[in-house]
Amino acid sequence: MRYSRFFGRTTMTVPHDADSVNARLLTQGGFVDKMAAGIYNYLPMGKRVLDKIIQIIREEMNAVDGQEISMPALHPIELWQQTGRDKTADAILYRTKGAGGKDFVFAPSHEEAVTPLAKKYIQSYKDLPLSAYQFQTKFRNEPRAKSGVLRGREFGMKDMYSFHVSDEDLDQYYERVKQAYLNVYERCGVKAYVVEASGGIFSDKISHEFSVVTPAGEDTILVCKKCNIAQNIEIAEGKIHNPHDPEEKELKMVEVKMERGPSIDENAKAHKIEPSKILKSVVYKLQNGGLLGVCIRGDLQVNEHKLSKFLGQEVHPASKEDLEAIGLVPGFISPVGLPKVKGGLKHAAEVYDTHEKGVKEVHRSKESLHFIADNSIKTVKNFVTGANKKNMDLINVNLGTDFTIDDFADLVSIKAGFACSKCGSKLEETKAIEAGNIFKLGTKYSEAFDVNFTDEKGQRKLAIMGCYGIGTTRLVGTIVEASNDEKGIIWPKSVAPFQVHLIALGAEKDPEVKKSAEDIYEVLNHACVEVLYDDRDESAGKKFNDADLIGIPLRIVVSSRTLKEKNVEWKLRTEAEGKLVKYEMAPKEIIEWVYGDCDCGDDDCK
Amino acid sequence: MRYSRFFGRTTMTVPHDADSVNARLLTQGGFVDKMAAGIYNYLPMGKRVLDKIIQIIREEMNAVDGQEISMPALHPIELWQQTGRDKTADAILYRTKGAGGKDFVFAPSHEEAVTPLAKKYIQSYKDLPLSAYQFQTKFRNEPRAKSGVLRGREFGMKDMYSFHVSDEDLDQYYERVKQAYLNVYERCGVKAYVVEASGGIFSDKISHEFSVVTPAGEDTILVCKKCNIAQNIEIAEGKIHNPHDPEEKELKMVEVKMERGPSIDENAKAHKIEPSKILKSVVYKLQNGGLLGVCIRGDLQVNEHKLSKFLGQEVHPASKEDLEAIGLVPGFISPVGLPKVKGGLKHAAEVYDTHEKGVKEVHRSKESLHFIADNSIKTVKNFVTGANKKNMDLINVNLGTDFTIDDFADLVSIKAGFACSKCGSKLEETKAIEAGNIFKLGTKYSEAFDVNFTDEKGQRKLAIMGCYGIGTTRLVGTIVEASNDEKGIIWPKSVAPFQVHLIALGAEKDPEVKKSAEDIYEVLNHACVEVLYDDRDESAGKKFNDADLIGIPLRIVVSSRTLKEKNVEWKLRTEAEGKLVKYEMAPKEIIEWVYGDCDCGDDDCK
Repeated sequence: MRYSRFFGRTTMTVPHDADSVNARLLTQGGFVDKMAAGIYNYLPMGKRVLDKIIQIIREEMNAVDGQEISMPALHPIELWQQTGRDKTADAILYRTKGAGGKDFVFAPSHEEAVTPLAKKYIQSYKDLPLSAYQFQTKFRNEPRAKSGVLRGREFGMKDMYSFHVSDEDLDQYYERVKQAYLNVYERCGVKAYVVEASGGIFSDKISHEFSVVTPAGEDTILVCKKCNIAQNIEIAEGKIHNPHDPEEKELKMVEVKMERGPSIDENAKAHKIEPSKILKSVVYKLQNGGLLGVCIRGDLQVNEHKLSKFLGQEVHPASKEDLEAIGLVPGFISPVGLPKVKGGLKHAAEVYDTHEKGVKEVHRSKESLHFIADNSIKTVKNFVTGANKKNMDLINVNLGTDFTIDDFADLVSIKAGFACSKCGSKLEETKAIEAGNIFKLGTKYSEAFDVNFTDEKGQRKLAIMGCYGIGTTRLVGTIVEASNDEKGIIWPKSVAPFQVHLIALGAEKDPEVKKSAEDIYEVLNHACVEVLYDDRDESAGKKFNDADLIGIPLRIVVSSRTLKEKNVEWKLRTEAEGKLVKYEMAPKEIIEWVYGDCDCGDDDCK
Repeated sequence: MRYSRFFGRTTMTVPHDADSVNARLLTQGGFVDKMAAGIYNYLPMGKRVLDKIIQIIREEMNAVDGQEISMPALHPIELWQQTGRDKTADAILYRTKGAGGKDFVFAPSHEEAVTPLAKKYIQSYKDLPLSAYQFQTKFRNEPRAKSGVLRGREFGMKDMYSFHVSDEDLDQYYERVKQAYLNVYERCGVKAYVVEASGGIFSDKISHEFSVVTPAGEDTILVCKKCNIAQNIEIAEGKIHNPHDPEEKELKMVEVKMERGPSIDENAKAHKIEPSKILKSVVYKLQNGGLLGVCIRGDLQVNEHKLSKFLGQEVHPASKEDLEAIGLVPGFISPVGLPKVKGGLKHAAEVYDTHEKGVKEVHRSKESLHFIADNSIKTVKNFVTGANKKNMDLINVNLGTDFTIDDFADLVSIKAGFACSKCGSKLEETKAIEAGNIFKLGTKYSEAFDVNFTDEKGQRKLAIMGCYGIGTTRLVGTIVEASNDEKGIIWPKSVAPFQVHLIALGAEKDPEVKKSAEDIYEVLNHACVEVLYDDRDESAGKKFNDADLIGIPLRIVVSSRTLKEKNVEWKLRTEAEGKLVKYEMAPKEIIEWVYGDCDCGDDDCK
């Protein structure tokens, strides 16, 4: 392709509304053009990248027996009413009216299409498993489109749906797709981790996200490089090391006066102990005003997400006023010395539940405050903690002896530097972009659409479903975010719009340069090498800048200077310096470089 | 692909709502599934056909320097307001509201997207010509979706748009694309004609349709098989032969009494002449009530579409009451003896124009009736015509002598049997489906979006545009309409979902059948032959019926019977009878048959 005839050339003008690296580089490089917030045109350069990504995904989906189909974007509202998602997904649905006043939605997802479709072809267990996928445009009325092509209102997606006879069959298939997804990212030249999705508070469905590591990522993940696994920081687990001797002899609890500030640091300093010797109590406010104490080792933080998940409701730290209203002293709170709440957590919940019905607020006193605890307090002896009185502390406090807790859970926030719960290596924190996700849907949709099959015993059963999504246009942006430098994009070879960027310098003045460049161009085209040939009458500086911005892996420069010694310049986008290659050998070497890592299996290929 | 694992198998149940051959066969064959009126799922079988069509179109568009892009479906309403199509196309627009109450339309076409996009990259004449295309889903709120996948509310389309420095450049490009389109249809295995589009009454834009010949077509075209051209019957031209001697001596006009019925046949019979000797006058009603006479040779019909186009307004035949109201005698009307209307057609139009302003209806009398005529009356001498009185005729009526006409035009309806105006061969009438169209848009859109370029002299000029569309999903249906029999679809090899339909009969009982079929399947797969392998435990009848319904070009049957003599059965879908081929030779022969007509140019291919 001659760049002089190419639709969508580079611009050095930074788009005024580019809110991300991908938006800036893809726009300046002539890959995309923003039509409206979250709505992009793909110019030929961007389309080429998108098509390569799609083909990689297609091959991987075919490899796990996915069958490619194509479902409509325009769905009668009745399908969405059947699953209730006309209401639960209302905020993001684009709606329209068709002929005869009929209501339609433009689909942000295709469970409502694929399930009734599959139903028509699933009769017996012999028809299962069945896995179908499509590349389709999705429409999602995002309140705020952002991050370039990462979060669009109209975007491309590969969505696959599978149907199974049993959970076990789904589980096996789910693992195959998980691996296929990892293959996709690897083939697209980015490092991705499987991360268990944090999900919503009430969500107990099993799902995983694929996080691509990049400094500009919106998500934070904790990575164990030894185990090659990553966790969403919101729900990460880790090994909590007890720095103290768990066999330490229990001493007798003593109340002491200690004028100190309320923080853990001030407490530790005052008592000349490690923060990990402090029994920390944090009080949370339940949704309708009730309070709950959470004990944790002084050097650790309570993870609100884990806590909310454990309680089944969203909670927030109580305010100073909340605490003081029931006589608690901030900085000196502890479960020690307070009476146990009858019925424990369940009772607290009951009280909470009945609160709205006008029942007296019995939990609204220090004495009726229920405490739960993180597992970390189990092995430390002789804690220091507050005495529920201003400037009074308790020392040598021991679980089981001086206080008891009925409800333990993993409630600790895991951070970089904590130990991997599998291998004990230090976890590293990194930013990442979610670039795909997979879900075990169970029978949610097969129930809504009554997708039954007859099993081997003649019994009718609901099909078990899974679904698997990768945003194709989002992946374009993700790769750019993960692979760029101050000069522009650095495309991995597998998804680069062209493999070779051929530049002729001064061809308009030196006929030999022109002829030499044209000859290379012709040979490469004949060998089906994808070449972008910069045949414009532009300066070397402009051409080099454009090449760096566009980010094609191999740059070949033909100029009077290189030809003087019968050379061309060979420079990889990933490397700072180029090298000289004999002009005569250049086409052969380029072709070898392009096809050298081809794994098509065809001997003739190389 | 094993049919036992295939998503979307055949059904012998005729869909109750199939309104066309394509809807029925594509649904029964497991190619598509109707989600709602005009909205279809494409199952793997249908997706394969669609992809092949798309690839053929892609290659042909690339060959005319089209550059593939991808534009959004969701357009801000402002773009459509800029061209006024938010109003003119209102009836078919799906509208929606996005975040912040913003109005959007789902695009039925992409002029409003491509024009502002191209504007960003067109500065100078050096940037032109530019041609960009996409495969995109279109949304069109059809009042009545019909004919299966032929007229959908959501459908696939290839739309290309070109930008030029001049009309001449567009003209040249337009011809290239016209040929590329013909290549597409030929490669898809259907016979298509280029037909000049009839367009609307006021439309003077130049456009062409591509009509694929099929008995079930909605359109009627007139074909000259010698010239290989076709015409839309609405606007068709032809050579009008004068069966009489144009040099015949003019005789003196005589008024005669003739008791006869009003029809041409009755007239001819009464006078014992050919209908072509009759000067026929047909009266039309203008839009607001005015009348106009049209003379034509008695054996010919006035083409209302041509007449409307000539007048610039839609007209309809006047009723008996209209005629009698101004003293005209149906069956005896002629311009002879009536005074010429002052100012002629223009005056009639003026009268018509001022009619609404309360001006006296001067044209509402026999004496103020203006006559125009078809060219056919120019060469006939000694016409017979009515004398504007009941049962009174005029004989030996001659144009120029006995009456004059100021406005002549081609107003004749051309039908099958008429002569081609180019070669004189007889035109044939055939039914066809419109399967693509191309338009010279001129500056309509470049003006709306101010797409200027600097020409070689430094002048700013508007870019000249063309646009070119093929419905991809519609083409799937068109091919089915054009190529089927009572048993099912007959896919042309180039777009068939699979090349080979391999059937094993009785494999569950005879291990040799199973092994032989599996071996062929493996060899063909290895040679990248697309094989659908019917490995199901079904009867021969069921498998043969399915094969006929699905319509894959080559059917290979392996059974105990064929293997007894070490054969397989080879049957083309286009032929009634099969033949036997040696089992040992079968894979080689199949591979040769599949790739034999490949024109990829690679010597290794064959």
